[in-house]
Amino acid sequence: MTLPPTLLSKEMESTRQLIEESLSRYLTLDANSPERLTEAMRYSVLSPGKRLRPLLVLTASRLCGGNDDNALPAACAVEFIHCYSLIHDDLPAMDDDDLRRGRPTCHRQFDEATAILAGDALIPLAFEVLSRDIQPGELAARCCFELACAAGARQLVGGQSDDLSSENLAIDLEKLEKIHERKTGAMLAVSLKLGALCAKAPLETVVCLEQFGKKLGLAFQISDDLLDLRGEQDKMGKRVGKDHSQGKMTYPAALGVEQSEALANRLVTEAVDSLSAYDARANTLIELAKFIVSRTR
Amino acid sequence: MTLPPTLLSKEMESTRQLIEESLSRYLTLDANSPERLTEAMRYSVLSPGKRLRPLLVLTASRLCGGNDDNALPAACAVEFIHCYSLIHDDLPAMDDDDLRRGRPTCHRQFDEATAILAGDALIPLAFEVLSRDIQPGELAARCCFELACAAGARQLVGGQSDDLSSENLAIDLEKLEKIHERKTGAMLAVSLKLGALCAKAPLETVVCLEQFGKKLGLAFQISDDLLDLRGEQDKMGKRVGKDHSQGKMTYPAALGVEQSEALANRLVTEAVDSLSAYDARANTLIELAKFIVSRTR
Repeated sequence: MTLPPTLLSKEMESTRQLIEESLSRYLTLDANSPERLTEAMRYSVLSPGKRLRPLLVLTASRLCGGNDDNALPAACAVEFIHCYSLIHDDLPAMDDDDLRRGRPTCHRQFDEATAILAGDALIPLAFEVLSRDIQPGELAARCCFELACAAGARQLVGGQSDDLSSENLAIDLEKLEKIHERKTGAMLAVSLKLGALCAKAPLETVVCLEQFGKKLGLAFQISDDLLDLRGEQDKMGKRVGKDHSQGKMTYPAALGVEQSEALANRLVTEAVDSLSAYDARANTLIELAKFIVSRTR
Repeated sequence: MTLPPTLLSKEMESTRQLIEESLSRYLTLDANSPERLTEAMRYSVLSPGKRLRPLLVLTASRLCGGNDDNALPAACAVEFIHCYSLIHDDLPAMDDDDLRRGRPTCHRQFDEATAILAGDALIPLAFEVLSRDIQPGELAARCCFELACAAGARQLVGGQSDDLSSENLAIDLEKLEKIHERKTGAMLAVSLKLGALCAKAPLETVVCLEQFGKKLGLAFQISDDLLDLRGEQDKMGKRVGKDHSQGKMTYPAALGVEQSEALANRLVTEAVDSLSAYDARANTLIELAKFIVSRTR
């Protein structure tokens, strides 16, 4: 099954190509790593994804006048963390999913132990890449710190933990927002932050982009909930309707479809407005933000 | 069940106390992390362990004239990685163990999803601690790099992957050594290396201590295999005899008990001899090395 084309511009598509090549290079078969493990890591990372987070890293870096080579390690590092979280979220003990990005999930294609280990290996790989390939060391350490915070118990893992424990509970909008701030927002926000940091942007730009990322993260999650509700499995490349069947808290369940759409659009508008000081330099980031709410998968 | 006292000297015991306090501080309940997740992390990390790896970090740092405060973040970081690997190794899809350090394993005490997530959260915590608390940034980045390599697909995770896939295969001594170099040796070697790096030791000392760690790692694994074979479950605090029942490659199975003991002793003697240039400064490290082959758990 091939995933349908996205709505991204030619510029973004060529940036995505750059990211694909870089991800693949970092995951070359290595005589010192067990072959099956590397294959599982490659299978999960190099499957057809949107690459939204690495695109945000590079787009933020470009907005700040940075060059792609300096930001690509960070772009790959955030994607490694994102992919590990998908592999582990799909495990039988977690969301128990069979399909991801249009293909069997890692534990279905390989086995459960290999999927756990492939996820486990992607986390240090992210930090290996950041600590070695970001220069100078001071900046590398800062990038490691930001990514570690976004990927840790207070953010990504905490969000997944709360998401699992919220199943079949009454919907509480504040709690729902908190889950998604952690589970989706933090990784989107840190992607933009790392891009800005790699371009050595001034502090106010770093903060502005991080805030933009938080709003975008929430809009992304709402649109994800909406896609899960009405999406077609073939387009999404993953099981749809599962949130509802698992009794998960979602925005459409809390607010209804129309109000959820309105909220996503309002968040994107606010996010886009917050970039007004950057004029045309922000165009690609605005394109990505709009893509997020208009995408079909 | 209380684990029996170890054979460590008073100095080492007080160092271990320092480590316990530092680990606990890093794992304080935090309003921003889900309580159950933090509890699972604390349960696994703060259970009664030998703290061999953090002791190696601090002992190496002292040998190089460093002060404990500069090395403690690295000591805790290696222990976080070690504990995550124990949590995940114990999972039903991996070694499927019910007992660890004398208590129910994390997934038995909590649940499988929580155990996966607690492990997942300990990895970025290690890098958060290193990148924030090691100074200057250049050194922090170097420490992140070394730990990421030791914890990744080429070392720790690769070793566990090979260990799982070697079950029920004919014993091949070279392959067995390779597994343990990765699974145990790399984390012991990086502990010594990080201690030396935090003390700003000259390159030859860093290399010497790393080599010492590799030999020690192998000796440690052989003594672990021997303990598994003849150990008492109460003393070990984990299920014994499981390697044999799982058809795992072990040193006693490959070489017999006597030859395995002789090999462990020879490796420790070689390791100890390699420190002769450091005179009395190496005494504590030598004590730790001897403890490793004489321990009863």
